[in-house]
Amino acid sequence: MTHNTEIRTVTDTWAQAMRNNDLQGIIKHYSADIVAYDAVKQLQFVGIDAYRKHWDYCLKACPGAMTFEIKDLVTHAENETAFSFFLCRCGGTDESGEEKSSWMRVTRGLRKIDGAWLTVHEHFSSPFDMESGMALFDLQP
Amino acid sequence: MTHNTEIRTVTDTWAQAMRNNDLQGIIKHYSADIVAYDAVKQLQFVGIDAYRKHWDYCLKACPGAMTFEIKDLVTHAENETAFSFFLCRCGGTDESGEEKSSWMRVTRGLRKIDGAWLTVHEHFSSPFDMESGMALFDLQP
Repeated sequence: MTHNTEIRTVTDTWAQAMRNNDLQGIIKHYSADIVAYDAVKQLQFVGIDAYRKHWDYCLKACPGAMTFEIKDLVTHAENETAFSFFLCRCGGTDESGEEKSSWMRVTRGLRKIDGAWLTVHEHFSSPFDMESGMALFDLQP
Repeated sequence: MTHNTEIRTVTDTWAQAMRNNDLQGIIKHYSADIVAYDAVKQLQFVGIDAYRKHWDYCLKACPGAMTFEIKDLVTHAENETAFSFFLCRCGGTDESGEEKSSWMRVTRGLRKIDGAWLTVHEHFSSPFDMESGMALFDLQP
């Protein structure tokens, strides 16, 4: 497999864990020293313990089937350093069974550590409207 | 210079161009095919022409001295592939001379093209509050 194919495979496996609401399946892709910029709450989550706790909170907030659709994935990978970015339609199902989702942006930085690609940095976000300061949840790619 | 030192130098030069309100000094760091996820307006800006136009709009919105302070810069670089991320205090000076700024997050993906590091991907964002949907401009690192 080329390096770029490896990054695509890792991305697919991680995304599937999200759809499965599988905390451990998500977390195992991160390095111990991950620095994550998530879309909500804080500027950053530093270290795997802080980020695991945040993921646990997020998965519990979406107890139903989780939506995680990846679009326009781009990867740049060398021997031990890679980054990737894509748009994602992210959301869940509310109490009435209705799907609520929005398009967001994701960037990931990865290193090959002991033969396996681990994500050392992750950045999720929604853009906001300059006038109102509100996150823009209705944008379409 | 090590690869990581090169990325730090490129980051400093680009940040200084921002402080100088120097459109061309900012733009020259980007590849023709850049895909940018900016903090405002749209999901993405694809290609240098679209991103130049957006930068021009942003610089004109901040005609006074521009604030661009970088904190906690991390770089991961190999021969031709690199990524970096940092917190930044970003803002400008309004008509009354008052500085308005907030802490944001930035991630950049770079490739060495014809001997020079160019940014092929850039991601700026502010996190938002899950209850209100409002961008969080008062967070401190």
